[in-house]
Amino acid sequence: MTRKGLFLSFEGIDGSGKSTQARRLYETLSGEGRDCILTREPGGSPGAEEIRALVLQGDPDRWSAETEMLLFTAARRDHIERVITPALEAGQIVICDRFADSTRLYQGLSRGDLREKVDALHDLMIGIEPDLTVLIDMSPTDALARAHARRGIEMRFEDFGLDLQEAMRAGFLGLAADAPGRFRVVDGAADEETVATRVREAIAPDLP
Amino acid sequence: MTRKGLFLSFEGIDGSGKSTQARRLYETLSGEGRDCILTREPGGSPGAEEIRALVLQGDPDRWSAETEMLLFTAARRDHIERVITPALEAGQIVICDRFADSTRLYQGLSRGDLREKVDALHDLMIGIEPDLTVLIDMSPTDALARAHARRGIEMRFEDFGLDLQEAMRAGFLGLAADAPGRFRVVDGAADEETVATRVREAIAPDLP
Ligand SMILES: Nc1ncnc2c1ncn2[C@@H]1O[C@H](COP(=O)(O)OP(=O)(O)OP(=O)(O)O)[C@@H](O)[C@H]1O
Ligand SMILES: Nc1ncnc2c1ncn2[C@@H]1O[C@H](COP(=O)(O)OP(=O)(O)OP(=O)(O)O)[C@@H](O)[C@H]1O
Ligand SMILES: [Mg+2]
Ligand SMILES: [Mg+2]
Repeated sequence: MTRKGLFLSFEGIDGSGKSTQARRLYETLSGEGRDCILTREPGGSPGAEEIRALVLQGDPDRWSAETEMLLFTAARRDHIERVITPALEAGQIVICDRFADSTRLYQGLSRGDLREKVDALHDLMIGIEPDLTVLIDMSPTDALARAHARRGIEMRFEDFGLDLQEAMRAGFLGLAADAPGRFRVVDGAADEETVATRVREAIAPDLP
Repeated sequence: MTRKGLFLSFEGIDGSGKSTQARRLYETLSGEGRDCILTREPGGSPGAEEIRALVLQGDPDRWSAETEMLLFTAARRDHIERVITPALEAGQIVICDRFADSTRLYQGLSRGDLREKVDALHDLMIGIEPDLTVLIDMSPTDALARAHARRGIEMRFEDFGLDLQEAMRAGFLGLAADAPGRFRVVDGAADEETVATRVREAIAPDLP
């Protein structure tokens, strides 16, 4: 694959501001006259959205962790083939709200023995990584405080608990430490505008 | 996994009589008082049937070969977890109309470079093989002659052509030669009753 564009993902714990900052960066870069697309996972292409709907509908126990991994990998493969790769080949900047790092951490934390399988499946069937990953880092307590107005996140914090969010945070920082060339860690504990400026500065050296 | 039962698959080219013989063997063994189930791929469990429907509906080009492989592997994983493994653990004989060998050949013949991926994905996410595989072997010309009354098969022969069916037959015989402990090759060019007797005899030594 010839990658002329730039593939950029946003990662971080629940409610850290990934979707907000991905959208803001898309608007900022577009405003600078750069050719960008904004996409997200799971989903991001019509086929991937259908697979996502199949995974999420019905009883939460209807798929095992392994079957779910395979379905999400199928969705990611479709998303890459139909949306991400064509955009990169056309020289666009692809901004993706979550990508494979989220899978690594969620599956790995939910069942420790899965982590190796997640990596092997990624290597076999996906293969590509973002050129840059912006990790919005913040404490789960801060993210929770912010989320009181927002029922969806509150529910997920209740599902997983602060401890798991702490483990997620540490996990993301661990991934960033393992791949410093790819990760840009941005402190997310500030107002939207300030964080947006930090993100724009963190990626500045890597923009074409 | 403790496997107390016996896992038996039927393979062979299109129209060779797999479904007919799988059903007949199920009836014969049940008639002998043996505890059997009859299942099929792709599909075989409610989740797997839903995935199968998602794969097969719509434009034939809507999924790439790799995405399709992942979706079928997700379906197989569900089928194994929900139907095959529980039956084997309960000591039943599981008779499955097609299993992983069909995937190996179809994907491998449709794009040569996929064969290695199919095997790696199987090893990673599926892992199990049938204890016994009955290969109904016959010439594509004989299978085609038989199928004239049956539009579905005729259409598939038109899609793939006799050459591809010849390649499938050779491929199945190759798999059987590589794993003689697992395969029982049965000549399928005879009336249903005769083939059923051959199948019953071929598996006799392996029955509990
Ligand atoms: N810097 C900020 N300061 C205060 N509130 C913020 C900030 N950034 C985002 N928010 C608010 O916090 C909530 C979570 O933000 P957002 O949806 O962007 O996070 P997320 O990381 O995408 O969450 P999720 O993990 O649920 O996808 C939203 O209500 C959003 O408006
Ligand atoms: N021994 C036989 N002699 C004559 N006709 C047969 C025999 N076995 C099966 N048939 C007929 O041949 C056709 C194909 O049989 P069957 O559906 O069992 O094959 P199959 O291998 O399962 O095919 P497919 O690849 O389409 O699933 C059916 O119409 C069936 O009734
Ligand atoms: Mg979000
Ligand atoms: Mg059949």
